[in-house]
Amino acid sequence: MLLKNKVDGLKNILKPENVLTAEEERYCYAEDSTNSKGKIKLPDAVVFVKTIEDVQRVLMYANKHKIPVISRGAGTNMVGACSCPKGGIVLNFSRMNKILEFNPQNMTMKVQPGVVLGDIKKLAETENLFYPPDPSNFKVSTIGGSIAQSSGGAISFKYGTTKDYILSLKVVLADGSLMQLGAGTIKDAVGYHLNQLIIGSEGTLAVVVEAELKLIPKPETSRVILSYFDNIDNAIEGVNEIIKRRIFPATIDFMDKNSVRTVESFYPCGLKTSCEAMLITEIDGFESSMEQQQTSVINALKSTGASEISVKIRDNEKESVWTARRASFAATAKLAPDVVSDDIIVPRSSLASMIRGCRSICEKFGLEVCLVGHVGDGNIHPQIAIDLDNDEEFKKYVQAKSEMYKLAVSLGGTISAEHGVGKEKISYLENTVDRDAVLYMKKIKKLFDPNNILNPDKIFKL
Amino acid sequence: MLLKNKVDGLKNILKPENVLTAEEERYCYAEDSTNSKGKIKLPDAVVFVKTIEDVQRVLMYANKHKIPVISRGAGTNMVGACSCPKGGIVLNFSRMNKILEFNPQNMTMKVQPGVVLGDIKKLAETENLFYPPDPSNFKVSTIGGSIAQSSGGAISFKYGTTKDYILSLKVVLADGSLMQLGAGTIKDAVGYHLNQLIIGSEGTLAVVVEAELKLIPKPETSRVILSYFDNIDNAIEGVNEIIKRRIFPATIDFMDKNSVRTVESFYPCGLKTSCEAMLITEIDGFESSMEQQQTSVINALKSTGASEISVKIRDNEKESVWTARRASFAATAKLAPDVVSDDIIVPRSSLASMIRGCRSICEKFGLEVCLVGHVGDGNIHPQIAIDLDNDEEFKKYVQAKSEMYKLAVSLGGTISAEHGVGKEKISYLENTVDRDAVLYMKKIKKLFDPNNILNPDKIFKL
Repeated sequence: MLLKNKVDGLKNILKPENVLTAEEERYCYAEDSTNSKGKIKLPDAVVFVKTIEDVQRVLMYANKHKIPVISRGAGTNMVGACSCPKGGIVLNFSRMNKILEFNPQNMTMKVQPGVVLGDIKKLAETENLFYPPDPSNFKVSTIGGSIAQSSGGAISFKYGTTKDYILSLKVVLADGSLMQLGAGTIKDAVGYHLNQLIIGSEGTLAVVVEAELKLIPKPETSRVILSYFDNIDNAIEGVNEIIKRRIFPATIDFMDKNSVRTVESFYPCGLKTSCEAMLITEIDGFESSMEQQQTSVINALKSTGASEISVKIRDNEKESVWTARRASFAATAKLAPDVVSDDIIVPRSSLASMIRGCRSICEKFGLEVCLVGHVGDGNIHPQIAIDLDNDEEFKKYVQAKSEMYKLAVSLGGTISAEHGVGKEKISYLENTVDRDAVLYMKKIKKLFDPNNILNPDKIFKL
Repeated sequence: MLLKNKVDGLKNILKPENVLTAEEERYCYAEDSTNSKGKIKLPDAVVFVKTIEDVQRVLMYANKHKIPVISRGAGTNMVGACSCPKGGIVLNFSRMNKILEFNPQNMTMKVQPGVVLGDIKKLAETENLFYPPDPSNFKVSTIGGSIAQSSGGAISFKYGTTKDYILSLKVVLADGSLMQLGAGTIKDAVGYHLNQLIIGSEGTLAVVVEAELKLIPKPETSRVILSYFDNIDNAIEGVNEIIKRRIFPATIDFMDKNSVRTVESFYPCGLKTSCEAMLITEIDGFESSMEQQQTSVINALKSTGASEISVKIRDNEKESVWTARRASFAATAKLAPDVVSDDIIVPRSSLASMIRGCRSICEKFGLEVCLVGHVGDGNIHPQIAIDLDNDEEFKKYVQAKSEMYKLAVSLGGTISAEHGVGKEKISYLENTVDRDAVLYMKKIKKLFDPNNILNPDKIFKL
């Protein structure tokens, strides 16, 4: 716990009403959307910043007194990236949430870090423009968190992830100085891409205080094609067949038997529970191309044994498919006191093996798992229903997780596609990433943050 | 000049036939495609590497003896990135040019640095896949150079640049150690994006020895729409109108009056020389969408005063338009003993001002300029015909260049979109990029290359 005079110092920097210190208030910001086990460590204070200068002053103060600073948007991440293992100050961006500039001609938007992704998408659409990254929590998650965790979503297969849509950043360094990274132009070949170094660094190198986003023309229309398969391999082969036919769907998502059944148990929406796998393929583009794309996709899916293929054209029909897909997490949560959603990616050629592997590992340890994922990318989210208070079960879960990560790496994949490393995956880093690369990451961390105040003990421990 | 025993050391590391030391041989590799003035500085030796181990051994040796190492692909860059201001060893990758793996299912390709871009594109197309980056020299330029200079090309508007297509890299560090960066999966949120730091670092941080590329499904077809305008503003407004209609062309390229006339003077191909500006719009996608896209683009162009709009559907017709566009550099070269091609980018809302500014600056200094560019991106390449041996003219050129860069920055743009900084733009860096950002670039450089042996005096001087 910080000494009272340190907290008073913060109240002098910001107004007292922007500094929360009561235990129940600190408790509210001690964790994020990660379901994890162990004693919750509280931050020492939660501060609300509104301006770049606020952030600079807090960081200068924290750096001087070597107090950890944890930047926080909506706290929707799933790897404990906003947790406070060393206490410190939570820098709350929820009130620094203005869209500063929207320039439809340049297809750019300048935003503060606390802006909710859904608001960016909505404003862009008023001018027929599109901000593609869409983590499934986009209605609440913020752009700051999205940049920190390099978030993606179902649509990344065609449209990429956050890193592909950041033209420039304003960041505050650990010492409180302000730095502009990138020119804000569509292309920029002047010096090192430092903004790309900041994206995905989970608030450990610098604090993002402004971002200029790249937008693209919004595709005219889309259709959702639902299909069912009797086995995993045929479903994955269906994905390959779609691509062979030169179709580039916005997304190809997947639900396994367990997740389909679990959704139907708790939120019935007419999915076919007798299948082994379900694919959701969303095609987009010009209205005039829809029939051609649809025919190609259906032929591809049929060629590998899909059944009950249906096409959703109306918005409410499409939305109901995605609602079912998104319900998978909440439905799995009903199977046990807790649910943990993981994030694994492998080359698509290894995806069927990965999916079967996840299942058999979880079966071995007696864990209930629902597998969903963005199979175009090779990205699987195993959602495991668990009682975290049951020590025996937790131990099995940790073993299963470790085996799944090992399998992913052995299949040429990695342990996080779009969630980040945070606190939860630290101990798996060294077995995943080249050791020298980790060494250089640590060197870069020390260069940017010599006192290790920025989100310490995330990604790696120094 | 290196002492004889140092050169002999190199001959011991590689076979003697892989080490060139004769003056006329070193002269061949002393410069690249940059037309610049001043005494040519020769490298001390040119070595041909074939394996990762070759590169490691040369770097260990160079690091021990503090000898500069300049990595070289085809030497097609235009900023002196392969020049040898401090002498040293040219690391020639032209024989390390194997495509190591092509996996159509995963849509990936593993390549050595000396592979020519055109070969990557050609192989991808055999499986209906597409490697989009297309610097206009793609028939000779290599992937290693492309990664070093973060190259783009006409198609970047829709498809991005090299940085968007690199999944993982193998790099050799200054001390000769080998490091793997990135997992090779479509998404990767495990730790800092060190591969993005290497891309565009012009061989100053590490030497790329292998790259895994992301491919995408190849669009089924394309059409080229040619149009002419009586003034620059209407042409640029035409670009805006295309986007307002939700069309995302693969490229929107531009030639000004001078470049159209110059091409017609030397390589007549039927362009309309009475125009002020010509736009080349290439739409792509499904055959079924072509009429819809074409109609929208034509309506957009007409709405801002385009005349003589023509649509090219057959491959040879399309190719002849692009041949004319590409001929602009060679044609400009016929106006004077030399031609220098620059690279400036601004937000599209400032593009008409930038184009007019380039023209009036060049007129003021009595310089002949042909303006071409990728106007979807806001990217302009002023091609200036000049006699570099004429000191008076060269002085004017340097002044004009400096004024154009200042204008670009004042309009919210930057001094290099896809060529890099190299040796040519070093002195403009500090007025373009945030000073603290340059400081951090230098710190990172020292971290990776403490003896400053990797392409020294490029991007910045330490």
